[in-house]
Amino acid sequence: MTVTSKATCEDLDASDPLAVQRSMFSLPEATLYLDGNSLGALPRSTAAKLDKVITEQWGAGLISSWEGHGWWAKPLELGDRLAPLIGAAPGEVVVGDSTSINLFKVLAAALGLRPGRRVVVADARHFPSDGYVIEGLCALLPGCQVRTVEGDDRRLAEAIDDSVAAVVADHVDYRYSTVRDMSEVTSRAHSRGALAIWDLSHSAGAIAVALDRDEVDFAVGCTYKYLNGGPGAPAFLFAAQRHLETARQPLSGWSGHADPFGFSAGYKPAPGVARFLCSTPAILSLAAVEASLDIWDSVDLAAVVDKGARLGDLMIELVEARFPDGAMTLASPRRASERGNHVAFRHPRAAELIARLAARSVIADFRPPDILRFGMAPLYLRYVDIWDSVEVLSEVLGAVD
Amino acid sequence: MTVTSKATCEDLDASDPLAVQRSMFSLPEATLYLDGNSLGALPRSTAAKLDKVITEQWGAGLISSWEGHGWWAKPLELGDRLAPLIGAAPGEVVVGDSTSINLFKVLAAALGLRPGRRVVVADARHFPSDGYVIEGLCALLPGCQVRTVEGDDRRLAEAIDDSVAAVVADHVDYRYSTVRDMSEVTSRAHSRGALAIWDLSHSAGAIAVALDRDEVDFAVGCTYKYLNGGPGAPAFLFAAQRHLETARQPLSGWSGHADPFGFSAGYKPAPGVARFLCSTPAILSLAAVEASLDIWDSVDLAAVVDKGARLGDLMIELVEARFPDGAMTLASPRRASERGNHVAFRHPRAAELIARLAARSVIADFRPPDILRFGMAPLYLRYVDIWDSVEVLSEVLGAVD
Repeated sequence: MTVTSKATCEDLDASDPLAVQRSMFSLPEATLYLDGNSLGALPRSTAAKLDKVITEQWGAGLISSWEGHGWWAKPLELGDRLAPLIGAAPGEVVVGDSTSINLFKVLAAALGLRPGRRVVVADARHFPSDGYVIEGLCALLPGCQVRTVEGDDRRLAEAIDDSVAAVVADHVDYRYSTVRDMSEVTSRAHSRGALAIWDLSHSAGAIAVALDRDEVDFAVGCTYKYLNGGPGAPAFLFAAQRHLETARQPLSGWSGHADPFGFSAGYKPAPGVARFLCSTPAILSLAAVEASLDIWDSVDLAAVVDKGARLGDLMIELVEARFPDGAMTLASPRRASERGNHVAFRHPRAAELIARLAARSVIADFRPPDILRFGMAPLYLRYVDIWDSVEVLSEVLGAVD
Repeated sequence: MTVTSKATCEDLDASDPLAVQRSMFSLPEATLYLDGNSLGALPRSTAAKLDKVITEQWGAGLISSWEGHGWWAKPLELGDRLAPLIGAAPGEVVVGDSTSINLFKVLAAALGLRPGRRVVVADARHFPSDGYVIEGLCALLPGCQVRTVEGDDRRLAEAIDDSVAAVVADHVDYRYSTVRDMSEVTSRAHSRGALAIWDLSHSAGAIAVALDRDEVDFAVGCTYKYLNGGPGAPAFLFAAQRHLETARQPLSGWSGHADPFGFSAGYKPAPGVARFLCSTPAILSLAAVEASLDIWDSVDLAAVVDKGARLGDLMIELVEARFPDGAMTLASPRRASERGNHVAFRHPRAAELIARLAARSVIADFRPPDILRFGMAPLYLRYVDIWDSVEVLSEVLGAVD
């Protein structure tokens, strides 16, 4: 597209099929929030939902709410509601614990399913916490080696040989927004007898994800970015149906037991994906995820993917038109199909620019060493917000030059 | 004491130094809630606190609240506030994740601190989830053996020999309420070069706990029982000061990294107890814990311990006076000093009795196979509630006989 005026952006907003979803979020006036890829905005219904759960279910129902309000079943119920957003089937997803903890579980499960193998291929592009967790698990296991791989999908795929138990990769690079070819990497892993584990933190609710079609083995991701579950919201965990009866994971708390209220000695994993649960469900946090899924239930995911791509394209187009001297260098793929829903640029004074933007109520992220990261959450961002943000960016950049 | 009338109970309530705390809880009318040892009652301030955090901090502050509202520091801040309740010093406690996950962390840390040893002594009385987690960790570690010990403190202590890396025990038995001698078992562990790990889920906020005085190495516990943090609230983790610079734990997520926002490759543990953090802090759940600690900050812990003992004594006295035929058999220690803040009785039709009590709005717990468990949360239970509960119990028992 070629957008040369704010009026064009207003036209795009007027015909946006997701405009109705924006009204479901509580956004501070006069803030241009390009950071929904870090912490998603607040759904309008969340506060009332939490109040109800706190007052009626906890306060009045007390212990009886574990059954009476279905608390115990929430991790599975919300998992089933989240499943369509990531191309999973009912019974393959749970919501609970954190992304790091869930990665620990599924990687341990994958290593258990490949007992003769002790190499884990790790994507050097991953969010660092994933690397720390892989390191933490492997340090426990004699002979376990982490093979960290820099580079594109082909390099990553080629690093998977017959010694590899599992590959762990981020679907969308948290810095540059580059999308990995989930199908290609997973297929390569399988051809070598390895399993594929994906972190979807930057893709769930943002771009198309087809876990079952791509035959992914395990996946994890957070719900506090594009899924709007709130700060530190519970994460999700996906395990493919074909592994559910054989996978074991070491964070074997009572929530994953076949008969948690039998209080028997000895762990017996629950049938199905419930065996990946560990902890007593965190009901207040889960209620906030539920409020968000109430919105997501009614969303056309194809429209989200389409709008995310257009917002990113617009951002790139406007920045490059405004700074033809290359003061801001695109660090993300130019083609929307190769990009997640954030756009990164490089500038030597990126940290200062992000601080100056914030002072003007344009909220984006700095990532070391020189990256400005702009998130394009399709549910509540308008095309006109991109226009206005680039206007402010232009003024701010003039001030630091 | 000898209590022969409801009027005596009313007198005791009139002079109760904790009567003011009861007014800080939202309790359903006409319910006699003897299950605060399972899910603590709702503080009156929790709903407003959550509303504020959701609306003002998340909704309006968005990403800036991680710093602006001190979100990132909450696990340490709340740990410092919780520390006095368990006899710990500032800088030894964090709040986050779950009891099971925290047990996994500290047991792995303990095994790391005792590299030549591969035996874990486990208390057969523990809440089953603790056993499942010990089993889950040990299954990962070649040569790791779990030695599960039945019996009293002496039996437990005697099972700790020079091959033992750590003993894991529950301070208060979740069924019978028996209190372990923390000092004796810990001291025996140390005399054999082993470490002591305690689960305080049924003692924090209920009875006297002196982790530092008793030289405990590690401890974990939940905040949703006597600490009123809400269903599935974040747990706490204690690590003694002397281990903080050497202990390592495998759930090494970015929250425990020395420089989480440096996004560097390679895990470097944070100095101090922060290295036991894993996940992005669960802000909504932590806000509920904070609302509860606002109450606990003003509580005289000696009064809590004293009242808990008196409520339990009263329950035993009234039940035994009412059922001199021994229809209900005391399953908890008779001496308050050997008992936590719940009292257990045996009856062959315990499950049915608990259901009938619930139908009459007396809420208590059944635990297999034949245990009725009555929780005596001192902050909001009245002496008269015990009287009334035993009245109803008497009617209900008459109906099933």
